[in-house]
This record gives sequence, structure tokens and C-alpha cells, in this order.
Amino acid sequence: MTRTLDHILGSSEALLSRLRGEAPLVQCLTNTVTTNLVANAVLAVGASPAMVDIPGEAGLLARSAGAMLINLGTPSAEQREAMVEAAQAASEAATPWVLDPVGVGSLPIRTELARELVTLRPTVVRGNASEIRALAGAGAGARGVDAVDAVDDAEGAAIEIARTCGAVVAVSGAVDLVTDGASVVRIANGTNLFTRITGAGCALGGIVAAFTALRDDPFSTTVAACLGYAVAGELAAERAGLPGSFAVALLDTLGGLEASLLRERARLS
Amino acid sequence: MTRTLDHILGSSEALLSRLRGEAPLVQCLTNTVTTNLVANAVLAVGASPAMVDIPGEAGLLARSAGAMLINLGTPSAEQREAMVEAAQAASEAATPWVLDPVGVGSLPIRTELARELVTLRPTVVRGNASEIRALAGAGAGARGVDAVDAVDDAEGAAIEIARTCGAVVAVSGAVDLVTDGASVVRIANGTNLFTRITGAGCALGGIVAAFTALRDDPFSTTVAACLGYAVAGELAAERAGLPGSFAVALLDTLGGLEASLLRERARLS
Amino acid sequence: MTRTLDHILGSSEALLSRLRGEAPLVQCLTNTVTTNLVANAVLAVGASPAMVDIPGEAGLLARSAGAMLINLGTPSAEQREAMVEAAQAASEAATPWVLDPVGVGSLPIRTELARELVTLRPTVVRGNASEIRALAGAGAGARGVDAVDAVDDAEGAAIEIARTCGAVVAVSGAVDLVTDGASVVRIANGTNLFTRITGAGCALGGIVAAFTALRDDPFSTTVAACLGYAVAGELAAERAGLPGSFAVALLDTLGGLEASLLRERARLS
Repeated sequence: MTRTLDHILGSSEALLSRLRGEAPLVQCLTNTVTTNLVANAVLAVGASPAMVDIPGEAGLLARSAGAMLINLGTPSAEQREAMVEAAQAASEAATPWVLDPVGVGSLPIRTELARELVTLRPTVVRGNASEIRALAGAGAGARGVDAVDAVDDAEGAAIEIARTCGAVVAVSGAVDLVTDGASVVRIANGTNLFTRITGAGCALGGIVAAFTALRDDPFSTTVAACLGYAVAGELAAERAGLPGSFAVALLDTLGGLEASLLRERARLS
Repeated sequence: MTRTLDHILGSSEALLSRLRGEAPLVQCLTNTVTTNLVANAVLAVGASPAMVDIPGEAGLLARSAGAMLINLGTPSAEQREAMVEAAQAASEAATPWVLDPVGVGSLPIRTELARELVTLRPTVVRGNASEIRALAGAGAGARGVDAVDAVDDAEGAAIEIARTCGAVVAVSGAVDLVTDGASVVRIANGTNLFTRITGAGCALGGIVAAFTALRDDPFSTTVAACLGYAVAGELAAERAGLPGSFAVALLDTLGGLEASLLRERARLS
Repeated sequence: MTRTLDHILGSSEALLSRLRGEAPLVQCLTNTVTTNLVANAVLAVGASPAMVDIPGEAGLLARSAGAMLINLGTPSAEQREAMVEAAQAASEAATPWVLDPVGVGSLPIRTELARELVTLRPTVVRGNASEIRALAGAGAGARGVDAVDAVDDAEGAAIEIARTCGAVVAVSGAVDLVTDGASVVRIANGTNLFTRITGAGCALGGIVAAFTALRDDPFSTTVAACLGYAVAGELAAERAGLPGSFAVALLDTLGGLEASLLRERARLS
């Protein structure tokens, strides 16, 4: 296993460097609350965001984008139509895409939409423990949009979704978990300040999509994204202990993140 | 009166501490311009925001939320439908809710909607002087979304709305005014920098909703919210004199606000 | 030409001072990604933004606003209807207005809308080189929303649009270009950090609209806006080298910008 973790660390470093060099186009259909943060996070990590989310354009761009993100935070009727259009186009064109099922479980419109979207074979599903459990039919969902379950309690649900949908599943929390249904990696980096700003999870969704655009093995790119983001958060928390300045520092550390820090800082298992 | 103000200060401190301990769920239906700031302000002060604003979900969450906010800043047709759904559900389920009638008066669609929403008995109405006067039928409304009237000129309108609708009314400006139709408290804290950033009023609406979720006397919770926010703004202005860094400092001071500072800093009458 | 540039510098200084004194109302119909930044940039430079973008209100306000901005970043169906309403009203009421054709070229819905809007005679068109070329029918458009063409390659397209539509055209890039179809001014100020944050172009669109609200010669107001913004960006980049803190510093330098710095810093040709 040590050699495997070594391999993961090496590939994470290499993927971050490639991302900066290639600056892939990452289409995002995301919520109105955190769309600015998602775009800035995708930019900071080295990719090129395009928040194109209307029917008639969303599907078109999804065919040529490097990767695509669907985040269900504030799914208006028009956006829901665009999301299905984009997911179908991505599926047809083999564009990798990421589903972030915000608030799934207790909120019925997005829950139904998420169930439809998973059938269109997302490359990665990223959510908090409550969302992942609800998506697998194993829990009542989040409280509003916040997790009430622990990451470890979602391991079974994550593996089930990974196996059923053929997706890599990332569960975010104090310790992140990434699985492809066979392997499970845990990332113990990060900071509690992620829970003190809105959109920390949404921004990670964008970054996962950015790494996915590299078209490498999705398990490796997802681990690299989660690790890079968690390390950037840790570094930001060392500079800024309050929410306003933490959000600013987070974009700064993402923007200046040295690939070598991933290995130096990583706490994987 | 001195004893009453003492009582208000004591209750404000206690309410802020309770808010941090209980972290109530605060549903927000708000505008696209400042939704990120509102969510971050609600988080910073200690509550848990959920920006759920689509028909079919908004009413459902309003039944179980700690409190709910309706802000009329950019009221799309779909959001207007969700706002009525949420207000009706809140009214039926006795969920306290806050109406922030942004731009009411000169802008007809939201003015008509605000008139409908006040009949659904908001717990608190928070606006600037021009909005409160327009809502009472006593003025032409704001210029765009900015007040053209002084807070004192809206005192009569605020008292009238409070008596007619049974709501607590908060008028924001250089000196804030809060009334339940019988008592009137003025809060002379704050900073002119609130007028240099977008959404300072919207963020206060979210914080008023957060305190309202404590289900204490709405007059006390509204005064506590306005006082806490004004003091946080004052402290932020001591650290940052320009708009970009002021907005960051405001979230920091809200996030780190000591309850004891409310008493120390308060300039009430 | 030196005398002309001198004249431009003098008028730019005077216009910035007037903007601060008059604080005109600037209506913005803009995208959900950067609407907060646009509002804050308009506020920082001294004007008063109102993000009113729903049918039934947009046209009404466009008749009385100092100026109006239409940005095509995320044009939902309802917003598209409001945009046409606002442009027609502005045209009828002689309210100056600015078109920011984000993503025009490769994305069909907004491309069609932009073609319709230019017939309603915008006062200024501001875009990146790929957008301006696409609007003139001379290129395939942006990659997502990012330019793939150099500013100089868009000079012919800019002059053509200026002559055909009677608009001033501003092309943003490493060196900005402003033309009224007869004169061409280049502004070599700015910073590469503008490309590291989302919405740097959108914010400039808002600032161009703010200066346009002064109802002076649109060529002079557009040059003043582009120069002021580029100088503010330069100053911000001297304080902050990473994207999160650069965005904060940009609003600070816009908010504190001394008119005399425009002359001191300007690199015009």
C-alpha cells in the first residue's frame, strides 16, 4: 500500500503541473450562491472556467469542453433543462463530467434530478456524507445543504454508487474519502475553516472537474484535486483564521500552490 | 428607559451566544447580486444558511427551517412563485420570517409582490428608509435600490407597518431604528463604509433572520441583530478603510464577534 | 497627437472627479457569476449600481437611469426578454447604454441576441478581441468566454462596428484599444492578474457604463473608464500578487483612486 500511496503522490504532483500547462476549458452549471467562488477556484488552480448554463448553449459547449460540472445548489427550471442537455451531450461526446448533488435527500426537485443525472454516467460524483448517502438511497439527506452524517458512515454508499454508476465518488468532510468502488483513499488534510465559508464544497467540485479535464484516470485526478484543495485550505488557514480573510487566502494559496507541497503535506491512507 | 436599554443589552449578548450554540437553519430566498455575502454573513454570525428558492422545495423547507428570509432584490418570475410558496408555508407552520423589500416603491413588480407578502404576516420587515416609506404608501420609494429618505422620516411609516402587520420593523441607515409599533430603539453604531459595498443591507437581512430563528421575542432578536451587525461594521471599519478590504474585514469581525463587545460598544437610545 | 493625448488625460481626470461628485445611477443587467463584482466596482468608482433585470421593471428603470449595462454572460430566457426591453427603452429615452457581448461567437443564443441588440444602438460596445471579431462577423469567437485573438487583430472589426453602429468600441486585452471609428487610442496600462480573476472584463463594462452616465462625449468617457480601471489594476497588482487578494486590492484601489494618478501613470498612444 505504501508504494501505491507513493504512486498517488507522484501522480498528483504531475497532474497539478499538467493542469497549469494545459489550462483546459471547464464548463460549469452551478448555483447562484457560489458561482463566483467556483469560477475563481477553477481559475486559481490553472484551468479556464466557462459558466455556460442555458438550454441551447449548455449541450453544445459540453461536447467540446475539457470537462463539465453540474452542481445542484439552486436548480431553476431553466437550469435543470440545461443540465440534462449538458449531461446527455457530455455522455455522447465522452466529455468527462462531475456531479455535485448539493442538498440531495430532503429537497425533492433536485433529488429527482440527481437520480436522472446519475443514469447519464457522471465521471465523478462529489458530495458531503449526507448527500452521498441520500443518493445511494441510504439516508434522509442533508439538513438544508449541510452534512449531518460522518464521512465514514458514507463509505458503503460511496462504494455502492461507484460500482453501480461506474463513477469515482468523493465524499468531503473532516477526512475526505475517494473511491472507485475497488480502492479507497482517505485524505486527512484540510481545515475546519472550510465549514465557515459558503461554497467550499462547490469550489472543490469545480477543481475536481478541472483535474478531470486532463483525461487521465479519474481516480487519480480526483484524489489529486481533493488533495490539492485540502492542502491549499490548510495553508490558507495558517495565514487567516477568520472566514472573510480565509476565503481570500484560499484563492491565493490555490493560485500559488507548489506541486511539491502535495507530497510534503499529504496525510493519505 | 435606562433599565430597559440595560435589559436590551443583556438580551443581545445572550442571544448572540445562543445563536452560536444552536446554529439554526436559516433559509434564504434572496437576490443573485449578494447571495454569496448573505450566506457568508449568516454563517459568520453562527447560523447555517440554505439558499433554497425554487418552487416545490422552498415551501417544504420553510416548514422546517429555523427562520426564513425573503429579499426582493432580483425577483425572477420563478423566484416570485417560490417566495409566495415559502411565505405561505412559513405562515402555516409558524416559522418566523423576514421580509427585505429591496427597491420597493419605484419598481412595480416587486412593489406588488411586497404588498402581497406583507399580508402573509412577516415576523420582521427590514429595509432602508425609502423602502419602508414606500411599503407604507408614504413615499415614492428608493432611487434604484438606494435610500433617498432619512431614517427619522420613516419612523411614522415603520410604526404604521408594525401596527398593521404585527411585524417588527427595522429601518437601516446612519442610525438604525427598530420598532414593534409601541417601543422604538435607535442604534447609532455602524459605519459609512456600509454604503460603499453592495449588499450591506441584504447581509443584515440574513442576520436578522438568523437571530429570529432563536424564536425569542422578535423585537429583542431584531435589536440584537442590528446592534451586532453595526458593531461588527464599526470594528471592520477600524481595520479597513476601503471597500474591498472592508467587505473581507466585515465577515471576519462578524465571525469573531465577542458578545461582550455589544454592551461595550452600544450606542442605543 | 501629443496635444490630443494631453487633452484625453485632462478629460479623464476631470471625468473621474465628476463621477464621484454626481454618483449617477447605473442600471446593470449582467450575469450571475460576476454581478457582485460588477456592483462593487461601480460603487467603488463612485456611481450607484442598480441590478434591475426583470421584464416589467428593466425597461422602466432604463428610461430614468444615468446609464445602462447589458452583459451577456449568463443570459437566461427571462433576462434576454428584459435586455431587449431595457435596450428599447434606453434607445427611446436616449439613455446611454453599454453592450458587453460575453462569449459571443461560439455560443449561439447570445450571439443571436447580440446581433439584435446592436441594432438598438448601444453607446459603447466593450469586449475582448474574440468577442469583437465575432460580433463583426470576422472570427469564430471566444473559447468559452476567454479571448483567443490578440487585441490588434480586432482593430479592423472594432472600427467596422463603430462605423456601422455609431458606437464607441473598446477592446480589452494586454493593451486596450478604444475607437469611435475615426480615432484609435491604445492604453498600455493594466496587469496580467486581470486574467487570473473571474469578471475583470465584466467589472470594466460596469465602469464604462458609469462613466457613460456622465453624458459627455462617449469616446472620452470610455477612454477615461478604461484608463482608470487599468491604472487601478496596476496599483492593485503592486500590492497583491495572487488572485484572491488581487480582487480585494482592485476594489480598494478603485475606491481610493486619485484622479491625478491617471495622468501620472498613463501609457497611451
